[in-house]
Amino acid sequence: MLTDQYFMLEALKEAQKAFDAGEVPVGAVVVCDDRIIARAHNLTERLTDVTAHAEMQAITAAANYLGGKYLDQCVMYVTLEPCVMCAGAIAWAQLGSLVYGANDDKKGFSRYASNILHPKTLIKKGLESEASVKLLQSFFHLKRALQQF
Amino acid sequence: MLTDQYFMLEALKEAQKAFDAGEVPVGAVVVCDDRIIARAHNLTERLTDVTAHAEMQAITAAANYLGGKYLDQCVMYVTLEPCVMCAGAIAWAQLGSLVYGANDDKKGFSRYASNILHPKTLIKKGLESEASVKLLQSFFHLKRALQQF
Repeated sequence: MLTDQYFMLEALKEAQKAFDAGEVPVGAVVVCDDRIIARAHNLTERLTDVTAHAEMQAITAAANYLGGKYLDQCVMYVTLEPCVMCAGAIAWAQLGSLVYGANDDKKGFSRYASNILHPKTLIKKGLESEASVKLLQSFFHLKRALQQF
Repeated sequence: MLTDQYFMLEALKEAQKAFDAGEVPVGAVVVCDDRIIARAHNLTERLTDVTAHAEMQAITAAANYLGGKYLDQCVMYVTLEPCVMCAGAIAWAQLGSLVYGANDDKKGFSRYASNILHPKTLIKKGLESEASVKLLQSFFHLKRALQQF
């Protein structure tokens, strides 16, 4: 049985891919029966699409893999607290468990309403949050530095 | 200058397409400079994807048409109050105006939090709501009737 930490590190690898592509570095994986069935990272810039968050793509990919809309037997690992849009999608998917890294004090769903997720979805937070925050801080630091030139 | 009612009737045509395809009948159009630049209807069943709401597809299509992520110069007409997921996407897109038909007392975003949308997005509601509700009621009535066989 693989650990939550193992899967969160896989989500962080996805976040790193976003970073390398100049995207806000957020990554996600969906796990079912101890196997990763979907992995995704933020692609909003490349796709010119605000809906292309890591979680949204991971939900679509996982449902496609399973051949069914509902992810009640799955765990999603995501490096940052989902926004309202992604939390709403996670609720529609009736996700079994959500494990996220860093809190998002500005755009995280919990700032808006605590009852957005499906009542049966288990939540665990704070896993590898330091690594997630460091990656995000590096990204925005670099972005600001580049804007000065 | 075409009227709000004209565009909402176009959104209702999209909802009818969803109905005909056995999908929960919700339709949307995005208008920019008095022209429809995107139209979509709910496809969650056909695509086996909870994220395939009319609004989400309309946002993706409109951004693709414009070549930019932000829809601040656009109006979205949607036959039903957006859910939390769609309202979150509408907020990210910084939509100029949102016009919706029927309220959704169960899943509408305003039941969860009033501050999900971007503060600059203008909201108008109740347009052609009766037609929207009738279509939804017919859909669920038919669905229940078919389940008895």
